[in-house]
This record gives sequence, C-alpha cells and structure tokens, in this order.
Amino acid sequence: MFEGIFTPIATPFSDDEGIDYEGMRHNLERWMKTDLEGLVVLGSNGEFVFLSEAEKEELVGWVVERVSGRKKVMAGTGCESTQATIELTRRMARLGVDAVLVLPPHYYRGRMTDEILYRHFTEVAEASSIPLFLYNMPANTGIHLSASLVARLSRHPNIVGIKDTSGNIVHLAEVVRDTADDFAVFAGNAGYLLPALALGAKGATLALANLLPEDCCRLYGWVREGRLEEAQRLQLRMLEINFLVTSGLGVPALKYAMDLLGYRGGSPRRPLRPLAESERKRVKEALVRYGALELDTPCSKEQGP
Amino acid sequence: MFEGIFTPIATPFSDDEGIDYEGMRHNLERWMKTDLEGLVVLGSNGEFVFLSEAEKEELVGWVVERVSGRKKVMAGTGCESTQATIELTRRMARLGVDAVLVLPPHYYRGRMTDEILYRHFTEVAEASSIPLFLYNMPANTGIHLSASLVARLSRHPNIVGIKDTSGNIVHLAEVVRDTADDFAVFAGNAGYLLPALALGAKGATLALANLLPEDCCRLYGWVREGRLEEAQRLQLRMLEINFLVTSGLGVPALKYAMDLLGYRGGSPRRPLRPLAESERKRVKEALVRYGALELDTPCSKEQGP
Amino acid sequence: MFEGIFTPIATPFSDDEGIDYEGMRHNLERWMKTDLEGLVVLGSNGEFVFLSEAEKEELVGWVVERVSGRKKVMAGTGCESTQATIELTRRMARLGVDAVLVLPPHYYRGRMTDEILYRHFTEVAEASSIPLFLYNMPANTGIHLSASLVARLSRHPNIVGIKDTSGNIVHLAEVVRDTADDFAVFAGNAGYLLPALALGAKGATLALANLLPEDCCRLYGWVREGRLEEAQRLQLRMLEINFLVTSGLGVPALKYAMDLLGYRGGSPRRPLRPLAESERKRVKEALVRYGALELDTPCSKEQGP
Amino acid sequence: MFEGIFTPIATPFSDDEGIDYEGMRHNLERWMKTDLEGLVVLGSNGEFVFLSEAEKEELVGWVVERVSGRKKVMAGTGCESTQATIELTRRMARLGVDAVLVLPPHYYRGRMTDEILYRHFTEVAEASSIPLFLYNMPANTGIHLSASLVARLSRHPNIVGIKDTSGNIVHLAEVVRDTADDFAVFAGNAGYLLPALALGAKGATLALANLLPEDCCRLYGWVREGRLEEAQRLQLRMLEINFLVTSGLGVPALKYAMDLLGYRGGSPRRPLRPLAESERKRVKEALVRYGALELDTPCSKEQGP
Repeated sequence: MFEGIFTPIATPFSDDEGIDYEGMRHNLERWMKTDLEGLVVLGSNGEFVFLSEAEKEELVGWVVERVSGRKKVMAGTGCESTQATIELTRRMARLGVDAVLVLPPHYYRGRMTDEILYRHFTEVAEASSIPLFLYNMPANTGIHLSASLVARLSRHPNIVGIKDTSGNIVHLAEVVRDTADDFAVFAGNAGYLLPALALGAKGATLALANLLPEDCCRLYGWVREGRLEEAQRLQLRMLEINFLVTSGLGVPALKYAMDLLGYRGGSPRRPLRPLAESERKRVKEALVRYGALELDTPCSKEQGP
Repeated sequence: MFEGIFTPIATPFSDDEGIDYEGMRHNLERWMKTDLEGLVVLGSNGEFVFLSEAEKEELVGWVVERVSGRKKVMAGTGCESTQATIELTRRMARLGVDAVLVLPPHYYRGRMTDEILYRHFTEVAEASSIPLFLYNMPANTGIHLSASLVARLSRHPNIVGIKDTSGNIVHLAEVVRDTADDFAVFAGNAGYLLPALALGAKGATLALANLLPEDCCRLYGWVREGRLEEAQRLQLRMLEINFLVTSGLGVPALKYAMDLLGYRGGSPRRPLRPLAESERKRVKEALVRYGALELDTPCSKEQGP
Repeated sequence: MFEGIFTPIATPFSDDEGIDYEGMRHNLERWMKTDLEGLVVLGSNGEFVFLSEAEKEELVGWVVERVSGRKKVMAGTGCESTQATIELTRRMARLGVDAVLVLPPHYYRGRMTDEILYRHFTEVAEASSIPLFLYNMPANTGIHLSASLVARLSRHPNIVGIKDTSGNIVHLAEVVRDTADDFAVFAGNAGYLLPALALGAKGATLALANLLPEDCCRLYGWVREGRLEEAQRLQLRMLEINFLVTSGLGVPALKYAMDLLGYRGGSPRRPLRPLAESERKRVKEALVRYGALELDTPCSKEQGP
Repeated sequence: MFEGIFTPIATPFSDDEGIDYEGMRHNLERWMKTDLEGLVVLGSNGEFVFLSEAEKEELVGWVVERVSGRKKVMAGTGCESTQATIELTRRMARLGVDAVLVLPPHYYRGRMTDEILYRHFTEVAEASSIPLFLYNMPANTGIHLSASLVARLSRHPNIVGIKDTSGNIVHLAEVVRDTADDFAVFAGNAGYLLPALALGAKGATLALANLLPEDCCRLYGWVREGRLEEAQRLQLRMLEINFLVTSGLGVPALKYAMDLLGYRGGSPRRPLRPLAESERKRVKEALVRYGALELDTPCSKEQGP
C-alpha cells in the first residue's frame, strides 16, 4: 500500500556532467531524516532522459543500497518500446526497488489510443514482479491518460497507483471515483496538493519535496487531520516557489533552489543549462518570501509555517 | 459582499424560439425556495449570445421584478466593444441588478493583452454604478485572464469578484492568494467546487445549480463546516451529471436534465439543437445513478445525499 | 462566379469612435482604381464585432451605393444564432450586396459539430436570395470547418465559395479536391497566396489588399500566367508586412500601415488601441524594407516589385 | 548540396520483433532503381525510438554498405542529451553516412528556448565531421523550431538544411526567405510537396516515398519544369493516401501500404500494433482510388498519373 509524500529526486551532476555521488549521498542523508515516505529515482526531475542504461542501473542500485529499506524506493522505467520498458522494469526489480513508475510511450502520440496504451501497460505489468505506478505527465509527453483508461488499468492486480501530473483536478477526482479504495492516486505537483488530498488522493510525488520535504509532509498531515485552514495557508504560500521549480523554470531552478537550501543540486546536463542570473534572482526571492531563506544569507533553513 | 451559490439560469424557449416566460416563472418559484444566494441572468447557460438587445432588457427586468430583492441578481453584460459593454452595464444597473458579470472581449483574442484587458475592464468599472464581477471562461472565449491581471483589477473598488471557469485549480489558488480577503473568487463549475472552496473561494456560480440547487448549497455548507468527508463523497457523485450538463453536452443537456427534474428547460435556440436520443439516455442514466431520478419514472426529485 | 482578389475593408473611425465616412470615401476612390475584383464589408478587418446593427446597415448601404456595380461587394453576416444570421443576411441582400460571407457561430464551440454547422449554414443558405461564402477563421473563432463539412455544404446551390483563413495548406488542398470546379476556394491571408493559387484556389480575400492592392493582384496574375519565379519572389517579400498587419499586430497595425501609405486607417474602436510607438516602428520599417515606403518620408507609394 | 526526394525508410520487423534484413534488402533493391536522391535511416518512419543503440549502428552500417554510394544516406541522431547526440552523430559519421538529421531534444519542452536549442545544435554541429540537417517535427516533439532560430543556425557552415514537418507553409516560406540559397529547405510531408517546392524548397523527405517513390519524384520534377497543372492534379490525388500513412494512421499504415504494393513493410514494434481490419480497408481503398492498386488484386504496381 502506497501513501504519503515521495520525492522524485534530482540527480546532481558535477561540472563534467558525471553523476555526483558525493552530492547524492549528502542529499540522501538529509531526506532520510524527514517524514518522507519514499523516493523516486529516474523521474522527470532526475533527468532520466539524459542517463545511459548503465548509469540508470548504477544509480538505482546505489540508492537502494543506501536507503536499505528505511524508505520506499520507486524507479522510473518508461521507455518508448514495450520490450525495452519490460527489460528495464525487470532490471529495476532485481535491484530491489519497491515499485516502478511507468511513463507512457509518447513519440507516436497520434497512435497512442486507449487500446494501445492498455495493452502496453498490461504487458509491462504482467512481466513485472513488482507493483507498477502509472505516470500521467501530459506537459512533457503530450499524452493524457484518460480516466476511463486508468480505471480499466487499475483493475490489474499489479497496477497499484498513478502519479497524476496533469493538473486537471476534475480528472484527478474522476480517477479517485473510478478506482478502488486501495488504488493510490498521487498528486504529481505541489501546486494542487491540498485539493488533491481533499478529493481523496492517497499521497503525492513532489519535485518541491526535494527542497522542502518537511513542509510537504506537514501539509499532507494537516489535510489528513482536517486542519483545513492551516493547510490552505501553507498551500497558498507554496505556490510561488513550487511554480518556479516545476513548470516555471524547471529542473535547473529545482537544482538551484536545492543549492540555496543546503542540498546539492548541481548543474543539469546539456541541453539544459544552469539558470541565468535574473532567473536565479527570482528563485532566491521566492525562497525569501516563502521564509525558507534569509535575505542575503548564503545558508538556509526549512522553517515550519 | 458576494458569497454562496449562484445559479446562471437557463433561458427556456418555446418551440418557436420565443422566450417561455411561463417556464421561467415556474423555475423561479422553485429556485426561490432553495438556499441559493442568487441568480445570474444572461450568462453562458442562459444563451445570452442568442438574445437581442431588447430581449436582454426585457428578460432581466422581468427577473429582477419577480425576485424583488429576495435573492441577489447578476446580469452578464460583456460585449465585444468597450462602449457597448458600458451601455449594457448601465441599462442593467437601471433595471436594478446587484452586479454585472463581464466576459472579456474575445474576437480579436490575439490582441487581448493584459494591458488592453486592464483598460477595458477598468473603463467599464468606472462607468458602472454597480459592482462588477470578472468572468474567466477560456473554453468559450479562448482568453485566459491571468492571475496577475485579476490581481491588478481586483484593486479597483468597483471590481468585486471573479467567476473562474478555467478549471485550472492552481490559477484559482493564485487568484485567491493575490487578491484581498473581501474579493469574491467564485468557482465557475461544480466539477471543482470542493477544491475551490477548500482553497478559499467564497462561492460559486454553477450551471448544475439550475437542476440540483440544494445539493450544490449542501456541498458549500459542508466545506464551510469542515465536514470534508461528506463533501468529498458528494463532490465525486456530482462529477458525472455535472460533466454532461456543462462541457460534455452543454446547454441542450442542461435543459433536458432540467426537464427531467421538473424544471422547464425547453429547447435551445438554433444553431443549438435538442439532444439526440442517445444523448438523452446518457443524461437520464446519469441522473438515475446520481439518485435524483428513479428509473423509468417521468417525474423526479432532488434528494439529499 | 467569384474569383480574383477581394479586400476586406477596414472601417476608419474618428477620434470619438464614430465611423469616418470621409476617410472611407477617400479609401474607396483609391481601391476603385485598382484591379481588385471586389470588397468585403463587415469582415474581421472591418471590426464588424464593434458595429451596432444600425451601423452595419448604414455602412453597407453607403458602400454599395458608391461602388455602384463597378466591383463586387460582399458583406459579413455571421451571428451567433441562426435566426439573427438569416435576418442580417436578408437585410444585406436588400441593400444589394453580391454575396454574404458567413462566419460560423462559435461561442458554444464545444457543441458546434459538423451536423450542427451543416444545418445552420444550410438554413441560412435556404433563406437567402443571394449566394453565400463560408468563412473558416479558426484563429478568431476556435472552430475549424472540416474539409468534409465544406464539401457537403458546397453541394448546396446557394453556397458558392469559402474564405479559408485556417492557414492549413493541406486542408485548403483537400477542399479544392472535394468541391466542384465552380466552387470558389479563396485564400484568407496573403501569407499563403501563392501556394493556395498553385493548388487551385480561385481567388483570395486579403487584409493586405487594403494597403497593397496592386501587388496582391500582380501576384495573383503571375501565378495564373505560370510566372512562378516572379510570384515566389513577391510572395516571400510580402510575408513580413503581411504578418504584422494580420496575426502579428492585427487591425491596429493594418490601420496604421494604411495611414502610412496614404489611405485613411484611423483608430480602432476600444478595447483595441492604436499601436504603441515600438509597434509603429516595426510596421514602418517593414514597409520600408518592402519598398512601399521611403525612409523618413511621411507620404508613400505602392511600387511594383 | 542536398536536393531532390529522400525517403525516410521504414524498418521491417519480423514477427518476433527482430529487424527483418531480408525484407530490408528487398526494399532497398526497389528503391535503388528509382529516381530517389537518397534514404534516411533512423527517422520517425523507421521507428528509431524502438531501436537499441546496437541495432541503430548495425542497421545504418548495413544500409550504407549496400547503397555503397549510389544514393545519399542520412541517419537520424537526435537524442535527449547533447552529449548522447554528439556520440551517436560521430558513430554514424564513422559508418559513412552523408549527413545526420537531428531532432531537437524535447522531453523538457518547456525549457527548450531558442537559446538552449541554438547552443545544442551548434555544439552538435561543431562536434560532427559531416553535415547536419535540422528536423522540425512539432507533432511528435511538441517543439517548433522558429524561423529566426533556423535562420541563425543556418549560418553555421556544418548545418546545411532542415526537414520541416510542421505543415505550416508560411513558416516554411519564412525559412526559405531567411536562409541562404544553398541552405536546403526540405518539405517533411507529401501533403504540401507542391506548395513547398513552389515557395523555393530544394527537396523533400517523404514517408510516402517509401511506397510511391516514382510519383513523388515525378511531382518534384514537374514543379521544377513549371508544369504546374500536372503537378497540381498529382498533388491533390496524393492527399488521401498520404494522410493515411502519416498523420492519419501512422507507421502501421505505412507498413501495410508497403506490403500491399510489393514492398516488405512488416509489423511495427510494440506498443504500435498492426492495423485493425477496418483500417486496412481504408488504406486499401485509398490505394485503389489512387490507382496504385487494382481492386481485389493482391499484387500491385505504381502507375504514372
């Protein structure tokens, strides 16, 4: 059973674009001390599209070993072909992850009918020894997993949840309505964490939890406890910085914000580039307004609201 | 101060496409007995684009007279030109409506920059003796009123609220965050009533309230009282019928559903047409599943959940 | 039979937003001396959405009288309701226009199925004593008239052509393929005049012909004569200024460019506003590069290529 | 200097999803006898996203060896990361291809500004010993290479052309206008081959040329010779079958049409599936209407028009 807050971890790179395992170790140690329920490796925020097959295997193995069961670990395994997705899923299962998060194939989006996608996800689920989360991410894939498709797939015993990053709150509500109680609907962005939880989402996988894990967990707890007013205030406060590190300025902003708050974000791989000075200023000011950073102070803190 | 549930009333037409005032009278009597806070005349659900200037004036005058202060009345006055919008707004003010709901000009959508829209709405607000609600309706207009534009406009003393039918819940949250506490952010569709209220919306203007006014008011009350679980169940239950009478099948479905539940929906004006048989079946079955209609029973009831 | 170049005339307004008939007279005199085949009154470039019913009737009557049969005159009559479209069409027929140009109803775009649109246009065509042109203008209406709908409508004896401003050249080719030889497919924008004519379009209705009527007619003639190289050079040269006065900066730029070239463009009606200084500079420079305006010269000329 | 018609070759797979080199050999022999100027391996129609790194290298090597200089060979090398694109480009250069066709990175499309893309393509071009074609394919990538970006990139000596599959004919014209005479603008779809050539395109890379290579070359020749009427008739006739094998039904339809005309199309890799029976019927009937297939005849021919 999956619930609670997961963070899709950023992959810090050194200046020569190699994976910075020392930075990764540093981040892991901090996340381990939080209330996060789990981590997602090889997600969109982890720049999985820039990693080779060998790097993916090495990185996930490394994370699983260090987490060693203290938190759940998911790995992203969506590839364009069904066969490649199955093979990567199996490799991840062997490395010991708890579940895989599977993006739909999307290059031939015009052909990705519900039927094609149903067969794809079903074949992957059949071939996998570990549970599968669907990953609805229209902004990056151009494909929207319809509520009826998700409902149909949710009946497969090995498909246990969905990360929904569509931002369409009615769609999320329909998915909650049309899936069983133990199917884990997860919000995919902190911009609508409160409304998603209020509608019955079980948890969330949030880029923002890379840098503000405790506040994300706090908001989750407050909605669970019915403390709606406090939850609302925190939700509204989160919007600005969350926008910047996700749809606003993307992974480079996420990494820069992590750097500002004492994590190791590092550089993105090319073609992504570090933020321009004016963009860095926007991120810094948003963190100050949020209360996570003091003005003109290099170091940082994550404060309670 | 505006809050609570408003219904943007349908305009029943007789078979020769004339306004059916007898049907209107019947509907008004029922709505008057509910907890609805107010009515909106000349909204999208009222087929305002099909009414002549003379009909608009006659209809609003007729409604204002019959409501006679027992509930609030708003009227839609958005026209393409600033001058025409001002003139219609003034006529509506003279008829005694409590506020106007102003759709942005949208034919030249490519030119409708924030600056152009700011000047348009400001000039209308200046010229109006009664308060103005903004109306964000991208699905019909192709124009999205940005959160920063709404925030800027909200500072005008005569612009008191917004009906947001964008369905973008993060945008709605940003508008709540960036406007003063007494600015009335209204959800524009029952599909996201609960999440909007949970984020601080003050009320809602809901097509669904034409046929299920008490349930819409009930959901509103429950969120206010913090009864989140009951609200969630009702919200999920509402999704199907709400979808059909709004983005799914539109005004003809709204009118047919009203007919089924004992209101007088009547026919739409052309080019809109009454629902096809298969579409009527979908609406009927959704109302049965909702619990508002018994199977094979011509008459109806609106039940508590 | 309709063919050749038409210009959808701008409506000059004076500073108090009234129609400037003296400016209109001036423009008409110049257009009359060109090879233009006809004029379209009440089109998108004529700001028809800002004109009252009375102004529409007065303006078209005025133009028809002055043109007095020397060129063809069309009038735009698309309204949201079928009945209003029929009534306006009939009024225009009584005023003596040669054809009407009918935009589809579009406020309820989600309901504007091919079947709904087929019945709408057919009912208007039945009720009209003069021929009807379809007007496909997705950028402003959000509705695209499918090739199969156009083909079906083209079989009605009173539907004689289409102005296609979709910019989808494959769609335009499909419409040529699927309609009879005497159905007049017109390009709706000078950006693709050459390719449209090369594919079998019979003519064009071009905003650019307000200011560069002779060059538009020249390009038309060259393609007809098979002088493809000269046509290509002129087509490429036209792109920049055409972009600015249509999708780039819209009607205000069209009017300003007319002013620069000795026509009377005047101001747009609000909410549209005259161009900002930086925008005026872009238009002026484009006209200089085009060769229609000399640098730093207030007056102008339209040169041959 | 690149010009003329290229075909982005399909990759036939056997029933176990392996590459069918015997089918490939058969196809190559037929294409070698045509007027095609060249082949593109690892394009969208070649299902490159389903091929492993090893398969890509093996396949291109195999094709280069068999073509052995009789026609030009391009290879698609666009990957998400700049580094991976550089490495694949270098491997392809070592295998002896004449140019690479480089799709932009697109997973993080929200961050793919002109500046990011400019640096990406420039770095790949710098690192490559062979010329580079840009590949604009918004339908699959969600990214549109703006005319100003293409113009800027075209000034790099190693960036020699663009395959434009945007279908935006005005954009294509702007690219022709803004690039040097020896920059090869190629149409990316047979649906607008005639208009593209009429506007100055140098050639085309056409899925349709997999099955109707001679007719594609014939149309190319006719436009070059100024035989516009014949070209127009053939262009219109091509639309239907071209639509089906590209945006209509995609790669599975392309492969099925190839099978019908005596090529070896074979099955697509999963998640793509062979066409359903009703879809096969549409393709067959379109080929009959085109004149390339006789009714109820298993075998086929490509006829002159």
